[in-house]
Amino acid sequence: MSQHVVVIGAVALGPKAAARFKRMEPGSSVTMIDREELISYGGCGIPYFVSGDISDSRALRSTSFHMVRDEAFFRDTKGVDVLTGVEALEIDRSARVVHARRLNDQTPLRLPYDKLVLAMGSTPRRLGLPGETLGGVRHVANLHDAERIRDAVAKGRVKKAVVVGAGFIGLEMAEALTDMWGVETSVVEIAPQILPRVVGPVLARMALRHLRSKGVRFHLGESVREFTGNEAGRVCGVRTDASRLEADLVIVAAGVIPNAGLARASGLDVSARGGIVVNARLQTSDARIYAGGDCVELRHLITGDPFYLPMGSLANRQGRVIGTNLAGGAAQFEGAQGSFVVKLFDKTVAGSGLTLETARTCGFDALSVLIVQPDRAHFYPTREAMTLELVFERGTRRILGIFGFGSAGDALVGRVDAVAAMLRYRPVIDDLSNLEMAYSPPFASAMDIVNSLGNLADNVLAGRNAVLGPDEFERLWNNGNGERPYFLDCREEADARQLVACAGERWHNIPQGRIRERLDEIPRDRPVVVVCNTGARSYEALVTLKESGLEDVASVQGGLAALGSLGAAP
Amino acid sequence: MSQHVVVIGAVALGPKAAARFKRMEPGSSVTMIDREELISYGGCGIPYFVSGDISDSRALRSTSFHMVRDEAFFRDTKGVDVLTGVEALEIDRSARVVHARRLNDQTPLRLPYDKLVLAMGSTPRRLGLPGETLGGVRHVANLHDAERIRDAVAKGRVKKAVVVGAGFIGLEMAEALTDMWGVETSVVEIAPQILPRVVGPVLARMALRHLRSKGVRFHLGESVREFTGNEAGRVCGVRTDASRLEADLVIVAAGVIPNAGLARASGLDVSARGGIVVNARLQTSDARIYAGGDCVELRHLITGDPFYLPMGSLANRQGRVIGTNLAGGAAQFEGAQGSFVVKLFDKTVAGSGLTLETARTCGFDALSVLIVQPDRAHFYPTREAMTLELVFERGTRRILGIFGFGSAGDALVGRVDAVAAMLRYRPVIDDLSNLEMAYSPPFASAMDIVNSLGNLADNVLAGRNAVLGPDEFERLWNNGNGERPYFLDCREEADARQLVACAGERWHNIPQGRIRERLDEIPRDRPVVVVCNTGARSYEALVTLKESGLEDVASVQGGLAALGSLGAAP
Repeated sequence: MSQHVVVIGAVALGPKAAARFKRMEPGSSVTMIDREELISYGGCGIPYFVSGDISDSRALRSTSFHMVRDEAFFRDTKGVDVLTGVEALEIDRSARVVHARRLNDQTPLRLPYDKLVLAMGSTPRRLGLPGETLGGVRHVANLHDAERIRDAVAKGRVKKAVVVGAGFIGLEMAEALTDMWGVETSVVEIAPQILPRVVGPVLARMALRHLRSKGVRFHLGESVREFTGNEAGRVCGVRTDASRLEADLVIVAAGVIPNAGLARASGLDVSARGGIVVNARLQTSDARIYAGGDCVELRHLITGDPFYLPMGSLANRQGRVIGTNLAGGAAQFEGAQGSFVVKLFDKTVAGSGLTLETARTCGFDALSVLIVQPDRAHFYPTREAMTLELVFERGTRRILGIFGFGSAGDALVGRVDAVAAMLRYRPVIDDLSNLEMAYSPPFASAMDIVNSLGNLADNVLAGRNAVLGPDEFERLWNNGNGERPYFLDCREEADARQLVACAGERWHNIPQGRIRERLDEIPRDRPVVVVCNTGARSYEALVTLKESGLEDVASVQGGLAALGSLGAAP
Repeated sequence: MSQHVVVIGAVALGPKAAARFKRMEPGSSVTMIDREELISYGGCGIPYFVSGDISDSRALRSTSFHMVRDEAFFRDTKGVDVLTGVEALEIDRSARVVHARRLNDQTPLRLPYDKLVLAMGSTPRRLGLPGETLGGVRHVANLHDAERIRDAVAKGRVKKAVVVGAGFIGLEMAEALTDMWGVETSVVEIAPQILPRVVGPVLARMALRHLRSKGVRFHLGESVREFTGNEAGRVCGVRTDASRLEADLVIVAAGVIPNAGLARASGLDVSARGGIVVNARLQTSDARIYAGGDCVELRHLITGDPFYLPMGSLANRQGRVIGTNLAGGAAQFEGAQGSFVVKLFDKTVAGSGLTLETARTCGFDALSVLIVQPDRAHFYPTREAMTLELVFERGTRRILGIFGFGSAGDALVGRVDAVAAMLRYRPVIDDLSNLEMAYSPPFASAMDIVNSLGNLADNVLAGRNAVLGPDEFERLWNNGNGERPYFLDCREEADARQLVACAGERWHNIPQGRIRERLDEIPRDRPVVVVCNTGARSYEALVTLKESGLEDVASVQGGLAALGSLGAAP
């Protein structure tokens, strides 16, 4: 019972689905088409090609054993027929035919199918602004665009660049331009923080501070109004509602839009937000037609709501599910939770699940805690501080999200992945306290940072610890609301000396082990804010102060380490 | 309702339980006693102190903010009274009194308690062999022993050392002696592999090969018979059933025995294997007496059976549970699954759950698959190969264990921790195929190695892939059973050329994409063994061969990469 499958789109999901199907049903046939000539590439690698870390764009189209994935490769090694430079025009669902044309000579093509896979991906969002079609304004849609950008910077034709959008691609491109090519790069972002909706404001500010230290400029909370050009029709500047920026190159990285037009025109269900609607088997509203990757809407594993998450990794896994199901299998792709990681120069931001803001928007009575701890045993000679933020629900103690910032990329990603792996099983914070992380001093702490994070959340929920975020500390220290808390540094005298000297008379030091005997130094009519290096001793100091009858006491979570990362230390 | 708690043992669990309890009930009091003067140290750091990576043993007894955890520290910062050099002699459970004595002057002490915590840890196993009490034969029981070893090697008094036992501590000690001090070190292990019961034989051999390449010598499958001494009563050699080894220093690292004698003598339940029996609240058979850490028996989260796992990380987490419960809480420690990681020079071995052998012993119809894949996108410039082994149950598809070997420590540990975090939720291999690992080319592959591992297990279970372990390949290649399989290298000609030239006429090369057209070169009356770099192409080749009617085909899992790590390539 041989069948013929047509796949529209040959970048990530399409090839995966086609190859998997052919392995399961070698006797069947597959025709895969794509508008572009360059297919089956690792689009997430584009910033590393632009930076020069990857010297040849063919690497993004090659297997691990250095074969370029072109038409011949798919024919010989996968048994898949590929037609490049071919655009699908219409799906005749009753006749089960895709009507297409060759782009070079407009030859019409008629592609009958038993089953069809829609893998059309997404398109960078156009802003619809004046000057957006000027030369040098780039929306990075494919490998050709990446090659043009790399070519321009490599030839020294770019002195100043503006990146619109401070999401993953925008920041990775800003790093690529700044780090390897010395291009003076400014990022314009309409939201008041980088990585909006991806991480909360504290971690975003830590990452922002690092990016700025590497020379990237930022215009947050600004909205682009126009791209200005020179006589040659090339971009020379960007005007926002607050600034005028010079630019030889503009990269618009303001999100992507699912390519669902063909599906919509064919009468398939497409959501209001524009993604093709699929079930857990990744079938569209026509059971013979499957869809996945950037062109579909997914179910969020935590909220259960539909959402959109264009990620190459999801596309690959969905491609396998589709390949299995094309061959009569019953594989499921139940949804996603938004795991991510982004390298920003020497630092890394990673996370999974719901941010505090998103969790609240979704109706959760959510709160978050933040912790700073070394990534390995504190006595191990090479170690780096890592910051983790946990988002959880008050009543149920359910974990909703995990986010982190730190130097040691793999160690941070490992923690995020471990918590992320639990998320779909509805873990509570106590599961985190006892999570059995592999332990040895070169890799983890006996009480690892994820365990401590669960413990912190537990103590906050029980009312044993009252925490203040580093951003809240900053506001208090800067006397935002006219409050006059008593700031108590509970580190040892030698450690606190420098700050005592430079922070002025508002900064007081009593080592944690001396608080009980020096209680009368602490005013009982003002709020007390306790600070230490990371928040561990200030918690113990808080316990002592509360026991002595002081009620309005708070401990700064993450302590001076977090304040330092934020640039908010006194 | 103030209570008094006595804690016996002040290394890992004791201090944690005491401090947690005092934070929850500041008005209550705690007396913690220990036989030793040096308390509250990170015992897992001892090999890194012996190596010199950690210069001062005080670092192992200090907080992250460099305060030494001595009696004064516990009194001032934790409100815990500590008595060192005090040995508990008897528990009078009806009177609720611990009878103890000072070791220096034999003064008897009477310590009444409302609740009692047993945190006595474990003792290195004595082999009961002639010469075991000679000078220079060390059982590393505490920080004093570590200091003596470090002192001897630092003074150049050790030229040759023998380590008995190739478990975690034995191998870490062997690395410490070899790497930093150039001591000629031999490891004697009674089992035929290193890390017995910890990992399977293939990963063990990969690690062994690396250790040997660093100069550590091994005597596997040998049993120590005697330690021989010189006239001065110092050890000078080790005699096994097969070898005579010279040695100035012997470290016996042949496991530990729970210190449960006091509990047993007090009538508390102690298991046949010697661990104190506790419930999920970590209460002994006397509800007023808690116990945890190296002196208790735990429940295995996968098998549900009792087992023994002396790990500092578990002790810390259990300490918090006990602290909570002493204060009237209802915290639970449900068990453990055996997550571990061990650094061996430049390589790392990590894992969690049941090895194939253990799984079968426990009655599971288990099998395992092995995969080699880079730890990040294959096009990303810095990447390292990682080997993972998955143990799973045939009928239920349940994941039972995950194990790995690789260079990039944090990246490997991250994968193991992610799978480990799912284990207690009874995941099946399909959950691994779709596990949403954080993805970006510098940190992971779009289809990450854990996803590929799930896919491989799926294909093996479905009969689509038939795999041969690298050790099985080695046996076949060495003509172990007189079989004459046809060895087919399905890499591209340029990649295969060298091996074709040196492996002789038994080694055949047909690139995977050419197999269909060169089918008649392959004999149809002999088993075919297909090999590529890592096992991906050989799987595709196998699909093609099976489609053409060949039935006895197998693909070498992990390919030449695994064979290379094993030292088993042709």
